[in-house]
Amino acid sequence: MTLEYKVPVRDMEFLYFELLNGKGLADLEGFGEADEDTVKAILEEAAKIIETDILPLNEPGDQQGCRLEGTEVILPDGFKEAYTKYIDGGWTALTAPAQYGGMNLPYSVGYMIGEMMCSANQSFSMYPGLTHGAAKVIEIFGSEAMKNTYLPKFSEGTWSGTMCLTEAQCGTDLGLIQTKAEPLDDGAYELTGTKIFITSGEHQLTENIVHLVLARLPDAPPGIKGISLFVVPKFLSDDGGNITDRNPITCGAIEHKMGIKASSTCVMNLDQAKGYLIGQPHKGMQGMFVMMNSARLGTGTQGFAAGERAYQGALAYAQDRLQMRALTGAKFPQQKADPIIVHPDVRRMLLTIKAYTEGCRAMSYWIAQELDIAENHADEERRQEAEDLAALLTPVIKAFNTDTGYESTNLGVQIFGGHGYISEHGMEQLVRDTRIAQLYEGTNGIQSMDLIGRKLPMHNGRLMMRFLTRVDAFVKENMEMQDAERYIKPLAYAVDILKDTTNWVAEAAKEDPNHIGAAAVDYLQMFGLVTVAYMWAEMALVAQQKDPEQQDDFYRAKCETASFYMAKLLPKVQSLMLTVMTGADSLMNYPDECF
Amino acid sequence: MTLEYKVPVRDMEFLYFELLNGKGLADLEGFGEADEDTVKAILEEAAKIIETDILPLNEPGDQQGCRLEGTEVILPDGFKEAYTKYIDGGWTALTAPAQYGGMNLPYSVGYMIGEMMCSANQSFSMYPGLTHGAAKVIEIFGSEAMKNTYLPKFSEGTWSGTMCLTEAQCGTDLGLIQTKAEPLDDGAYELTGTKIFITSGEHQLTENIVHLVLARLPDAPPGIKGISLFVVPKFLSDDGGNITDRNPITCGAIEHKMGIKASSTCVMNLDQAKGYLIGQPHKGMQGMFVMMNSARLGTGTQGFAAGERAYQGALAYAQDRLQMRALTGAKFPQQKADPIIVHPDVRRMLLTIKAYTEGCRAMSYWIAQELDIAENHADEERRQEAEDLAALLTPVIKAFNTDTGYESTNLGVQIFGGHGYISEHGMEQLVRDTRIAQLYEGTNGIQSMDLIGRKLPMHNGRLMMRFLTRVDAFVKENMEMQDAERYIKPLAYAVDILKDTTNWVAEAAKEDPNHIGAAAVDYLQMFGLVTVAYMWAEMALVAQQKDPEQQDDFYRAKCETASFYMAKLLPKVQSLMLTVMTGADSLMNYPDECF
Repeated sequence: MTLEYKVPVRDMEFLYFELLNGKGLADLEGFGEADEDTVKAILEEAAKIIETDILPLNEPGDQQGCRLEGTEVILPDGFKEAYTKYIDGGWTALTAPAQYGGMNLPYSVGYMIGEMMCSANQSFSMYPGLTHGAAKVIEIFGSEAMKNTYLPKFSEGTWSGTMCLTEAQCGTDLGLIQTKAEPLDDGAYELTGTKIFITSGEHQLTENIVHLVLARLPDAPPGIKGISLFVVPKFLSDDGGNITDRNPITCGAIEHKMGIKASSTCVMNLDQAKGYLIGQPHKGMQGMFVMMNSARLGTGTQGFAAGERAYQGALAYAQDRLQMRALTGAKFPQQKADPIIVHPDVRRMLLTIKAYTEGCRAMSYWIAQELDIAENHADEERRQEAEDLAALLTPVIKAFNTDTGYESTNLGVQIFGGHGYISEHGMEQLVRDTRIAQLYEGTNGIQSMDLIGRKLPMHNGRLMMRFLTRVDAFVKENMEMQDAERYIKPLAYAVDILKDTTNWVAEAAKEDPNHIGAAAVDYLQMFGLVTVAYMWAEMALVAQQKDPEQQDDFYRAKCETASFYMAKLLPKVQSLMLTVMTGADSLMNYPDECF
Repeated sequence: MTLEYKVPVRDMEFLYFELLNGKGLADLEGFGEADEDTVKAILEEAAKIIETDILPLNEPGDQQGCRLEGTEVILPDGFKEAYTKYIDGGWTALTAPAQYGGMNLPYSVGYMIGEMMCSANQSFSMYPGLTHGAAKVIEIFGSEAMKNTYLPKFSEGTWSGTMCLTEAQCGTDLGLIQTKAEPLDDGAYELTGTKIFITSGEHQLTENIVHLVLARLPDAPPGIKGISLFVVPKFLSDDGGNITDRNPITCGAIEHKMGIKASSTCVMNLDQAKGYLIGQPHKGMQGMFVMMNSARLGTGTQGFAAGERAYQGALAYAQDRLQMRALTGAKFPQQKADPIIVHPDVRRMLLTIKAYTEGCRAMSYWIAQELDIAENHADEERRQEAEDLAALLTPVIKAFNTDTGYESTNLGVQIFGGHGYISEHGMEQLVRDTRIAQLYEGTNGIQSMDLIGRKLPMHNGRLMMRFLTRVDAFVKENMEMQDAERYIKPLAYAVDILKDTTNWVAEAAKEDPNHIGAAAVDYLQMFGLVTVAYMWAEMALVAQQKDPEQQDDFYRAKCETASFYMAKLLPKVQSLMLTVMTGADSLMNYPDECF
């Protein structure tokens, strides 16, 4: 039995157009093509190619994995053909700027396609996935020549991009980077060093691979303020964009990993490789943050994309597998046993996956649309609000989505029982593939520190005020909504807990910054739980407000899942408040010699 | 870098002799050999062979896995040699009865050796691991002839045992078993059917494999009341115990699994295989429960055994890996960065692993000793109390230990960051290996139902009263202990929550049995958290009471870890109470068509 997956187009459309402001996006400068019919047609079309061509490669890709031959990485069978089909369909051009051959559709549209890709085949999705970030950096910081050289190729999908940050001695702490860049006479640089964990660092899907590399100039100040960013292509090219020499940036090894085995994770050796400075000397982190924010939102997708897959697999199994009788007596006496979906705990697990998956999807689509607004809205204040919300919620989306996504894949396995542990059902692969998302692009601990230590105090708390203003207004406006005690009252209660906890942390931090670090992970969890509760209350409201003739199981499911979420998942905020408020003492007073 | 592991002998000895009643066990009938010096010598000796001979096979065993050749299963290199050394050392005889060549040491001593084995190499540990249960069933329910045939061989380790319960259509629901047993003229039976997920079903470690098989006699009533238990050896033997014919119970396939790849998990085909009824016809579940309870406590070991391993690996990494500076300023300014153990969140993760690992170990050793008391104590009332406590806590030990063990291995990976996801560090293998423990021997959901639906109401709540009597007495007696607000007061508060929640469930169950199923998993989590809190308060008390000259970092660590546990982990009971008390409605009123 292979794990089935159908793209949840209905939910995507619901979120994009009914819950959120998808219709309004088409009115923004440059997004004229993104009218509702077009976007829906794109979703349908993408679902088709992804279900047909990319999904079937997932399981064999896991089994075959990648292998290194010399300095070449050989991908699993079928990846090259599927990638070619993908770029021939124009999918890499979707959100690329029109002047470089792209369709200039909103980021938020591409985000939905990214989700489908990731649900179908996480390893595959990473080959085109990282190119977006590289393109964005070049678009913002690159010279005209760079833009003209690289951006059309990225849009075509014939060249791809990578991020080369990590070295053996530095992951989180990029100030420790040792890769060196020596200036050449022609204005270019020569880079030498070794990068590790480079996703898509080597493969044969594209004609060229464009590495964005962090390195240190000879006159660099120590630490993070001495890091510069370079473009280092696998193949150099002439002014006409034709490939010339092989640049000595080569793959020395690939990693053997827990999952995403069809994704090529490379050690890249730079041996006097030619590179081009991008942006200002020593200011490389600016560009990297652009890539990292894009990558963090993309990583956030991996959480609910995996959750969706786990839900579909586990639901089919729970409806099919006959075992034991319902606690209140046989539901299907003509069968030898009842399907396991009659058991309260199986329903609890299924609804947990569903509530996290759809709730995190809503939160992520919201912020994806805010990013489009931040870029293209006519009103500056609205742009600024959107940017603030995106900055605040990016670490939440990265960490909360991937934590709950991992939990969801594990619940999926649990619903399958022992069969979940066996490779043939595909559930255990989901667990292995999804685990990486809590680690890369900054561990979830680092995301938590970004939220609590950087985003909260930023601009005197302006980001948080933007968020609370929205949520408070929603709560106030809908305090008397239908079945308020199921939806809005639990949300209001949780928002108060979040405010109290935020204030506690702000006060405690004045006394000892370790309180911030001690609170970080629990605080981000609380933030995610509350934000997703806000999404569920909004979804329930939209569903309630449909006309009677529009009402169907989909809208009913929204209301009932919202109700489940408030009853069974949101109460975690209570314990999180308690653990945050016990502070840092039990951690920092613990004697080092007692570990 | 291979993952190091040192057997935590000090903690084992502390729990066994200082916290618990190890000294008293030696006074019980038949346990005369188990004096403190002997037990300590055994632990030291076992640690040596396990660290030297079994630990190094763990990583290669994962890489090589098992393979099927015809109907033979080939294990990874070195397993046969290590197993031979293990039985030559007499380790399989440790807890076997003296009259069958065993050393008759307490079960609780064998339990500690089982932990070491499992930490070192979970796959390997399962080969001798299941034999204990098979031996116990034959000891209790077998004929004299069976005992004389099998028990000496089990004690020697030259024959091994399995449990053959599961079939494709039944795991939890054994009433659906289809394997048939037809009576033969000689008093034996002929069994035909297919069993799946048979751990150690086929291998070449032993001369014979003795399968305990559940099957249905021709006149069997339907369902669980028509299941009989049979001994079906791989090789038949004559009266002298000499092997004669190959019995047609053969391995048809082995499973490809997420982890424990060196453990042979077999599909076993019985094609008119000869078997011998054990116990009464149709009463096979009695014997199986004996095996399952032993297997469940053994599975509970796998949780904290993995946690120990994750802790040791992650601690070494956290002390070694330099990245970023402490939030309060550089701790090691002479180094390029501080070791990551200075960061509050890394300490939180390490202490979470440590608190769960040592707390679950304490709870499990306690119950292992109670089982010895239940078997051999002179006083009947004391035996009954011990049996009640063991019956109550067996599902908690199985489920809570393996849930927290899995969490611990995932925290271990998280501390390693991206390096945790790479095979070479060994952390990801721990995650994959440990995941099975939440699934087999009854999923943790089934354990939760056993606790709340079976053990709580049993004998009018007598089991729970035994437990609460102990805990309440401890709390009352020590309400004024040193630093009471750090230890005993949080415990007392959590015990009250457990009592309130238990009463709520008992009342709600009268109205609708689905409230039991809806509460089960959360309730078991709460029960585990409270029991482990009780253990930590006891450990802190013992540590406090040491004379000043005995005080050292070990005892200090006990107090500080207890304090951490109460501050950062125990507060989860608060949210669990809230989610339990929202009942079954959001699950059972959810319309089927809305999934």
